[in-house]
Amino acid sequence: MARQPTLEFWYEFASTYSHLAAHRIEEAAEKAGVSVRWRPFLVGPLFASQGWTTSPFNLFPAKGRNMWRDFERMAASYGLPPITKPDPFPQNSLNAVRVAIFGQDQDWLVPFSKAVFSASFSKGQSIAEPAAVVAILDSLGLDGTQVLRAAASDANKTKLRVSVEEARSRGIFGAPTFLTDDGELFWGNDRMEQALAWASGERPPGLR
Amino acid sequence: MARQPTLEFWYEFASTYSHLAAHRIEEAAEKAGVSVRWRPFLVGPLFASQGWTTSPFNLFPAKGRNMWRDFERMAASYGLPPITKPDPFPQNSLNAVRVAIFGQDQDWLVPFSKAVFSASFSKGQSIAEPAAVVAILDSLGLDGTQVLRAAASDANKTKLRVSVEEARSRGIFGAPTFLTDDGELFWGNDRMEQALAWASGERPPGLR
Repeated sequence: MARQPTLEFWYEFASTYSHLAAHRIEEAAEKAGVSVRWRPFLVGPLFASQGWTTSPFNLFPAKGRNMWRDFERMAASYGLPPITKPDPFPQNSLNAVRVAIFGQDQDWLVPFSKAVFSASFSKGQSIAEPAAVVAILDSLGLDGTQVLRAAASDANKTKLRVSVEEARSRGIFGAPTFLTDDGELFWGNDRMEQALAWASGERPPGLR
Repeated sequence: MARQPTLEFWYEFASTYSHLAAHRIEEAAEKAGVSVRWRPFLVGPLFASQGWTTSPFNLFPAKGRNMWRDFERMAASYGLPPITKPDPFPQNSLNAVRVAIFGQDQDWLVPFSKAVFSASFSKGQSIAEPAAVVAILDSLGLDGTQVLRAAASDANKTKLRVSVEEARSRGIFGAPTFLTDDGELFWGNDRMEQALAWASGERPPGLR
């Protein structure tokens, strides 16, 4: 039996367009016959390398104003719940991403990740504090306190740093990003469908 | 008879994604029953206000590398000719945009604009020098030298400056941008279809 093609989905919990992709990719990937590997990471260190100390949507106000409106329009067009704007934005996603990295090979990674996005962007809840992350884990039937403690181990912190450097070395500069087996990079929720099509072997006509 | 809804298409000759939109919008607008007003402008002064002295695709190399690949993929998926990369990038678009501003109410504005984009992004030609712009005008059966001279008048230069300030005051921060009669702003070639749908009265379900 042929191996199912895979697509890596690199996402950041503070990223608005990662929220849109996270809530759509399972259904779209199933239709495309593609298996998805969820890759949580942090974009902050990549932004810092290009001199940005916060989200570009804060640094460039006109761009930010349009993003919130666009985010709201896109969520509505996908039939997702109305958007709530996290306060502050961006949320500090360090505790959540450490847990996701710890859960990388666990069957709760995807439901946990979607629950974090929903808390932040559909329910107006903070995801920054340890207690917020514990509450999300608990709601999934896990022992949140224990998972958070394990996620704070030095070994797991190193795993997160390695993931961020892997992202950088593979050309990632923002989130969400989709990477195919043959190294093709697609940036942004807007490219999810093309990334899945590419992963499943489709190519735009005439493309070298 | 009801007035046809209109959509403003703000574009910059140095902008890669403006090229994609310029070659697609006429057909898409006809299907949507929307009349398009072509609005040439310069993004440089807007970028300068946020501290950028050149294209963000040059300032942020990983983003730039992906843009060229994405641009190539998107052009192929639309059935447009293969992309050529202008050297240097971005091209100085001042002469071309002055001509377009001068031609704002002329029936040659659209063919001229598409010809400039094709020269730059499909034929690998420079669009920066006066002679390049004259050649494009001549190829459309106009008197290029005379048009270029008229476009360099103080009145026309002022008209361009006013357009750029209009763009800024209406929330534009990049190109291409689509603006509807009711002030809804859509940024980027990826939003052309949504902008046309909005202009024709469609709204995402549940959107306030």
